[in-house]
Amino acid sequence: MKMYEIQDVTFELKKYEFSEPFRITGWIHNEAENVDVKVVLKSGKIGMGEASPSYRVNGEKVSALMALQKDVKEMLIGSDVRNYRRIFEIMDGFSRTAPSVKAAVQYAILDSLSMATEMPVYQMLGGSKSEIKIDKTVGIDELNKMVEKAKRFYHEEGYETLKIKVGENLKEDVRKILAISDATKGASYVVDANQGYSVKEAIQFANATYENGVNIVVFEQPVIWNNLDGLKILRYNSPIPIAADESAKTKYDVYELIRNGCVDFINIKLMKSGISDALSIVELAKTTDTGLMIGCMSESSLGISQSVHFAAGIGAFAYHDLDSHMLLKERGFRGKFKQEGELIKL
Amino acid sequence: MKMYEIQDVTFELKKYEFSEPFRITGWIHNEAENVDVKVVLKSGKIGMGEASPSYRVNGEKVSALMALQKDVKEMLIGSDVRNYRRIFEIMDGFSRTAPSVKAAVQYAILDSLSMATEMPVYQMLGGSKSEIKIDKTVGIDELNKMVEKAKRFYHEEGYETLKIKVGENLKEDVRKILAISDATKGASYVVDANQGYSVKEAIQFANATYENGVNIVVFEQPVIWNNLDGLKILRYNSPIPIAADESAKTKYDVYELIRNGCVDFINIKLMKSGISDALSIVELAKTTDTGLMIGCMSESSLGISQSVHFAAGIGAFAYHDLDSHMLLKERGFRGKFKQEGELIKL
Repeated sequence: MKMYEIQDVTFELKKYEFSEPFRITGWIHNEAENVDVKVVLKSGKIGMGEASPSYRVNGEKVSALMALQKDVKEMLIGSDVRNYRRIFEIMDGFSRTAPSVKAAVQYAILDSLSMATEMPVYQMLGGSKSEIKIDKTVGIDELNKMVEKAKRFYHEEGYETLKIKVGENLKEDVRKILAISDATKGASYVVDANQGYSVKEAIQFANATYENGVNIVVFEQPVIWNNLDGLKILRYNSPIPIAADESAKTKYDVYELIRNGCVDFINIKLMKSGISDALSIVELAKTTDTGLMIGCMSESSLGISQSVHFAAGIGAFAYHDLDSHMLLKERGFRGKFKQEGELIKL
Repeated sequence: MKMYEIQDVTFELKKYEFSEPFRITGWIHNEAENVDVKVVLKSGKIGMGEASPSYRVNGEKVSALMALQKDVKEMLIGSDVRNYRRIFEIMDGFSRTAPSVKAAVQYAILDSLSMATEMPVYQMLGGSKSEIKIDKTVGIDELNKMVEKAKRFYHEEGYETLKIKVGENLKEDVRKILAISDATKGASYVVDANQGYSVKEAIQFANATYENGVNIVVFEQPVIWNNLDGLKILRYNSPIPIAADESAKTKYDVYELIRNGCVDFINIKLMKSGISDALSIVELAKTTDTGLMIGCMSESSLGISQSVHFAAGIGAFAYHDLDSHMLLKERGFRGKFKQEGELIKL
């Protein structure tokens, strides 16, 4: 059955502008440079994936990723995509050097198999859910602007969960969160400090918001990624759940976080872990009663589609922070899903 | 798409005689009572699975398993098998009370999906390998008989890995293993004590065989299943790899074994863990560099086929102890694989 053989793998560089500057701790995003990955089978069927590299988190640069095209093609050409675990394993070598390419290729393999078998990827992965709800993100800005945006997302657009970026100034951050909470009563908040706080600051933030009744459901990566002891101290001194994001790239990272009792939640992103490590992390988290959310880098609708299918297929995520496609200017929608506000249907 | 809906689930009790009594520590097998599980889809496609319950390991009795037929049917009827993770989760409730039924139903679901999509189960699971090598087992017997059997399996039938049952008498066991090793130079041995030794005896066995140059690649479950501290002490005092079998039923068991550093190897059996926990255990073991083997209870060719497809699809097992179908008298071969001695091809 040559039909399932990989005939070609191509990379295409794509640039996207953000609709408005997107600010997080220590970083402002104005544009995204992503890589479309196309896998072509002998049958002519095509699978698509997207790499959205993050220099901040993964140390990736798109120049180096694009330069890998020939290597990846040589590594995969002639492989049978039905034997996808073999291909996953080949790509695992890029876990630290090019995790977003690993993710895009691994997903494109599943997508090509899905095209060939006419079974959507989310069902190939188990079909746990046929719809999920996503959050929408409020970047760092002046207090009034953050409150206005939160009100719009919650009251007008119907997003029940808001993601709020903090981490640059503890006192201001607490003021902002309290103001947002006042203006959007009933909402849930995923608060993300992107490594901006010290352990002591993070404890202060958690207590101050909790005592004021702010409904924070997850407090993401309050401290620097490599401070595992700090995360653990914070976890046991915080009334609200602590999540690892930048600390949790590979399955090995997550095993260490969990066995050392460092966190309540893991934020899985395909761009950090690929499909293969993401599958491992899910099993590890479910076994140890660790909470799971899924996030994104700066994916377009193509890359968000990957995470949507993964999340629905696996069905293990309490929160879906999959909104980057709404922050980018993109010519045409390329997701294999339908979106009605916060609701995403497959 | 009603085609993929489950229309019926039926159980059928099957009895098999062993070709000759099969003796392990504290137990003699003369017959096996297994349950064929059939899942019928609206399309008419049929998926088959087999439960081979073990009272010794799991506390299961076939009477209670057969009595579950109506419940299982009610729990699953109308489900879409493409959403197999939902069904896996429903069956997870039986993890302790009826793990062999959980395994058979979970596999039958995959088999029915495989029939509907015309993709073999091992490829649905990732297609890591298209062939595997199995071992063949020498039960407890008089020294001469064990040696004769080992010689036949190794020299005449070509099995490179022999599984040797020990555990009832340390001194005799060492004599037997040395005699077998002398008579089958070049072979590898998986030695299984089925919980028969004390920790001190197990350390003596490991050292005595190692010092005499016996090529034992895995030493299975030397001590009682609930002695985790004992396993750990043994592990750090044994020159040969220690495996958990009876200690490793669910993914939760395996997480505790691994995080506490108790073992070098895990023996996964679908009859202990089902497909769902087996998948978790594989990810956990691979993340922590723990060795993996796969074993069986008293499955016929139908049940062995399950483990063959699982093992080849996942591709993570160093040893495949999947020979129970060769110990049973079975009317017709029902495996979806071809066997040439130790070689199993898909």
